[in-house]
Amino acid sequence: MARTITLEELYARPGFLLRRAHQIAVGIFVEECAAYGLTPPQHSTLIVIDRCPGLDQAALARAIGFDRATTGQVVEGLEARGLLKRQNSRTDRRRKTLALTSEGRALMRRAASAIERTSERLLAPLRPSQRKHFVELLLQLTGNLNQASRSPISAPEEAGAPGG
Amino acid sequence: MARTITLEELYARPGFLLRRAHQIAVGIFVEECAAYGLTPPQHSTLIVIDRCPGLDQAALARAIGFDRATTGQVVEGLEARGLLKRQNSRTDRRRKTLALTSEGRALMRRAASAIERTSERLLAPLRPSQRKHFVELLLQLTGNLNQASRSPISAPEEAGAPGG
Repeated sequence: MARTITLEELYARPGFLLRRAHQIAVGIFVEECAAYGLTPPQHSTLIVIDRCPGLDQAALARAIGFDRATTGQVVEGLEARGLLKRQNSRTDRRRKTLALTSEGRALMRRAASAIERTSERLLAPLRPSQRKHFVELLLQLTGNLNQASRSPISAPEEAGAPGG
Repeated sequence: MARTITLEELYARPGFLLRRAHQIAVGIFVEECAAYGLTPPQHSTLIVIDRCPGLDQAALARAIGFDRATTGQVVEGLEARGLLKRQNSRTDRRRKTLALTSEGRALMRRAASAIERTSERLLAPLRPSQRKHFVELLLQLTGNLNQASRSPISAPEEAGAPGG
């Protein structure tokens, strides 16, 4: 039987550090975007629907790597705030497609510089060359393990996605 | 007003990638530790209490960087399973201190190699030199932004912590 790990080892575990870094990233995001009332999942959803109007909720879930239940909650919240609308698909009446409202598009434009600041603050402790490398390592790790995760990401085609 | 970002830019945002990497890390952890019924916060809690018996719940929350409510839920769950016990402090009767039970210690020993595998699987997409660098960058980022987060980590002293 292996020995149990020390506190120092816990604090240097990649899983522990990723939880911590993610927690910090969410904190910075929520702080910077307080005036716009946006959380990271809401922001991701708005971007995907802005770029790929006509997606349905299942395709949105795959595009951001969330499960269906979480995606449903995010969509309902944004719809209740008038930022996003659900419409009957032209090609399949049982299917609901998503589109931003003009309020949704306006909010995204207003929030854009705050969103930009979140990334800057998050990477501020790293030197410019390290920032690039850090993002590359994260892309390599998440890209390779995408299929191993419970909610793999499947990027939709930008704009003019069929079926809208 | 700044332009809104593309899907490609969303997928390369450090915050998006950290959420995704954390989500993958939790998935791997839960899969590897299914036989032991352990989640990452439960595991962190067991390690901290194993190494620092006599901490109270507030100090535990600071040690792992969780808020009080989440920490309370984790502690209750572990106590209900008989892995951890709450005792009256010898020095302050209003204070409850935490300690592992022998079942808790035995579970940690049994789970140790599964825990080890979670880090190996998580870092498998990176070359050995990249793994080290990735962990160093995460340490640098989380260390520098610790105080900016809502639940800063304050490491307890290992073993023989006073006040138990």
